[in-house]
Amino acid sequence: MRRFVIGSARNLIESSRQKYQFERSILSSPYRFLSSSPAADSPSSSSSSSSTMAHPVSLNTINPKVIECEYAVRGEIVTLAQKLQEEIQTKPDAHPFEEILYCNIGNPQSLGQQPITFFREVLALCDHPAILDKSETQGLFSADSIERAWQILDQIPGRATGAYSHSQGIKGLRDTIAAGIEARDGFPADPNDIFLTDGASPAVHMMMQLLIRSEKDGILCPIPQYPLYSASIALHGGTLVPYYLDEATGWGLEVSELKKQLETSRSKGITVRALVVINPGNPTGQVLAEENQKAIVEFCKQEGLVLLADEENVYVPEKKFHSFKKVSRSMGYGEKDIALVSFQSVSKGYYGECGKRGGYMEVTGFGADVREQIYKVASVNLCSNISGQILASLVMSPPKVGDESYESYSAERDGILSSLARRAKTLEDAFSKLEGVTCNKAEGAMYLFPRIDLPEKAIKAAEAAKKAPDAYYCQRLLAATGIVFVPGSGFGQVPGTWHFRCTILPQEEKIPAIVTRLTDFHKSFMDEFRG
Amino acid sequence: MRRFVIGSARNLIESSRQKYQFERSILSSPYRFLSSSPAADSPSSSSSSSSTMAHPVSLNTINPKVIECEYAVRGEIVTLAQKLQEEIQTKPDAHPFEEILYCNIGNPQSLGQQPITFFREVLALCDHPAILDKSETQGLFSADSIERAWQILDQIPGRATGAYSHSQGIKGLRDTIAAGIEARDGFPADPNDIFLTDGASPAVHMMMQLLIRSEKDGILCPIPQYPLYSASIALHGGTLVPYYLDEATGWGLEVSELKKQLETSRSKGITVRALVVINPGNPTGQVLAEENQKAIVEFCKQEGLVLLADEENVYVPEKKFHSFKKVSRSMGYGEKDIALVSFQSVSKGYYGECGKRGGYMEVTGFGADVREQIYKVASVNLCSNISGQILASLVMSPPKVGDESYESYSAERDGILSSLARRAKTLEDAFSKLEGVTCNKAEGAMYLFPRIDLPEKAIKAAEAAKKAPDAYYCQRLLAATGIVFVPGSGFGQVPGTWHFRCTILPQEEKIPAIVTRLTDFHKSFMDEFRG
Repeated sequence: MRRFVIGSARNLIESSRQKYQFERSILSSPYRFLSSSPAADSPSSSSSSSSTMAHPVSLNTINPKVIECEYAVRGEIVTLAQKLQEEIQTKPDAHPFEEILYCNIGNPQSLGQQPITFFREVLALCDHPAILDKSETQGLFSADSIERAWQILDQIPGRATGAYSHSQGIKGLRDTIAAGIEARDGFPADPNDIFLTDGASPAVHMMMQLLIRSEKDGILCPIPQYPLYSASIALHGGTLVPYYLDEATGWGLEVSELKKQLETSRSKGITVRALVVINPGNPTGQVLAEENQKAIVEFCKQEGLVLLADEENVYVPEKKFHSFKKVSRSMGYGEKDIALVSFQSVSKGYYGECGKRGGYMEVTGFGADVREQIYKVASVNLCSNISGQILASLVMSPPKVGDESYESYSAERDGILSSLARRAKTLEDAFSKLEGVTCNKAEGAMYLFPRIDLPEKAIKAAEAAKKAPDAYYCQRLLAATGIVFVPGSGFGQVPGTWHFRCTILPQEEKIPAIVTRLTDFHKSFMDEFRG
Repeated sequence: MRRFVIGSARNLIESSRQKYQFERSILSSPYRFLSSSPAADSPSSSSSSSSTMAHPVSLNTINPKVIECEYAVRGEIVTLAQKLQEEIQTKPDAHPFEEILYCNIGNPQSLGQQPITFFREVLALCDHPAILDKSETQGLFSADSIERAWQILDQIPGRATGAYSHSQGIKGLRDTIAAGIEARDGFPADPNDIFLTDGASPAVHMMMQLLIRSEKDGILCPIPQYPLYSASIALHGGTLVPYYLDEATGWGLEVSELKKQLETSRSKGITVRALVVINPGNPTGQVLAEENQKAIVEFCKQEGLVLLADEENVYVPEKKFHSFKKVSRSMGYGEKDIALVSFQSVSKGYYGECGKRGGYMEVTGFGADVREQIYKVASVNLCSNISGQILASLVMSPPKVGDESYESYSAERDGILSSLARRAKTLEDAFSKLEGVTCNKAEGAMYLFPRIDLPEKAIKAAEAAKKAPDAYYCQRLLAATGIVFVPGSGFGQVPGTWHFRCTILPQEEKIPAIVTRLTDFHKSFMDEFRG
């Protein structure tokens, strides 16, 4: 999308970058902490001669890495959608639709999905433990949620859910998560390898901060990719080394492509530090085959790359989820063979508890000295939020057969999953019927990423409007229907191809209207621009 | 403490820094995003010739900024304390004390302080809104907490407490916070200036990230300071420009000192971007006088510095809290005159809800273009945790006269505050009676920062043990008594002076034992090393 950014903003970015390079070049010695004594000991000097100065902060004087960073999921289209929503609120007939349909972000509860009751019962009881002993509580909460709340409180020193915890998270909760990983993978997991974080994003930033020393350090990232990665690499001043997923084979990840991109970047003087793999893909939704994962592990081991795995427990019966740790261990590779970080979040999965900001990373294959550095950086922020920590433990240990909540829990979970599957199918079918559109299958993520072949005239119109063609399409779609997609240019794509990401999360009863509006819009758009 | 760091670690830091400088010097052109097409289009190359490579991550290959960063509040002494605690658990008579007394960190609920009931009632109801309509709920929760929960839910689109919110935080909660600021200051506050964050730490990082472009950018920081600031400046690659608080005048902040340090750093080629002020002081505990604040505002305005104010609502009746925004506005300075960021957190104040990770910053005096950049960076992490957001609104709008909870709320609050005042006085008196120790008054923070004149022999013993003298004292104290202080060298201090930080938070009934143990230890320590 950058090459379509309007001229002036682009120039600003360029000029501040040049300034930055210039300042770097005149550096003669590193001042990191100015050694100095109190003023009484320093040479007396007249007070500042400057009178009122220019405003201290402008686009020309802020960190250019901040300006370079982009985050399409909450970008221009979403800002426009929020504006339209406000207009509808004050003037209901301002636009040819009654509501904005947010398909831009994986945020299921904002679209009406209900939380899992058991999880919320336990959270409420941990927030207000004073009611645990009261008789009315028995009538309001399930017996196993009360029991679970007691268990969790007993794992917290002083039962203090309002205290900072250990900087990696409450030990007892990490024990539960490690046990859940072990049960899932069939290989041991160590609670001391778990770092609980406020969602997965801070964990990703922490690893980028650790690995990136300068723009000569590269991170291999899939294209298309979830833009957290490109944003984090930009903010930390590294270089994104792209590898392209192959749309023709259902967004396949080919090790030959990894190798070629690695060598190309090495020939340009880049030290590649890590490989990011998103499984299931985001925005592409594919689930990696185990054989493919083995080849990826072997590649990282051979090339000395840290494997950064953005993983999600897949609950689609046809596709089995294999964590990269399980795959590595099943190949006989242990701590000494491969450095592997697995990122998980409570925002994903059927429960979709995005606002709780729970997440963790499992860090293996790093030496004790480097682990200490990761711990130190975690400790600067003290700890992640305790409710998010508790929730991360709950999703790894939901009610079991025989527990009072088990049946209602299973029914809620299965209801969400089967509805998601129906919605995915309906939308996938609808996309496939559109002229010039082809659509991948949703294999376990909550996204579809259809490809759209746009007529030459539409591409010209987009250029005239200083937009990427898919951004132009998405903006027209929003203005006509209230439907919010994210243009593929926000995720990266093979040059000359165009896509958009659509979540499958709107409530089931709204899907038919989305299909109708989209189909009608698409037809008139194509009619308008057909050659 | 760095100059006492053991040789090998120090060398590692030096060598990785040199490497970093070297890599910077050979840069010829900026590669930020390697432009490249899919492998099919790139020149074919043989697969990597490297066989098994060295471990990809070591202290020599990670980001040296991470190594430079230090965070004493959870440093070596605390690691030792955790080890001792484990030893006591397995063998109760392993040490000459029964428990570890954590006075190192402002974490009141970990030491037995109970949360404010009203806050927790509302949080629990928002976590599990399904019970709001049930009859048993009336018996368990106060009427005003139920009403408040409904109000908050109505401010959240779809009443979805599990959804990502606006990246600045839920608008209705920001309205409440802005109204609270307005009532406190008597000047308008704009909800669009509020950014809700997971505690104050991410907000501080966000501003450092925005302002620091290279090590030529400096941030004026108090010495002693809360080490979040030195850590964040180090992580973002800037230069900490120290200004010394004057212990002789109760840790006074003199503008003449600011000016001299500013000019010294400018003469060394540093561009000073911002001034950090912590009020009440941390670790020093003093509350700034309004006249002093005015002089600081004037200084920032004249010198074109962003004022980064780490502020806390002070509830001590003798000392009145004035926010820097109130002071600026009362001087007639508005948006165009001074760039000001105020950081607040729910971890501080009488409620001490550290584990909830609620906080916010109020950002004023930045242009719309820079504000957009701040919003973009906030959006990369999607949003802060919703429970923390709710709590931040509750502390700014507690129960009012006439509300059902008002009396119990007031009693809980006043009980905490009066107990804190008694504890502070007892500890302050005890410190003042120790040989060679002088102690400041606690004026509204939860810390004391006594100064200790150590005998020459003790300083020599510390050097032999490769410790800073105050770190040596704190370690000996811990080993003998189980009491955990943070050495002053972790916060910075005038060279040749020694201090430690002690929170006033242990439960009141434990204070006499702390005083006795500390007094006995101190006497024997001084006897051991007296000249």
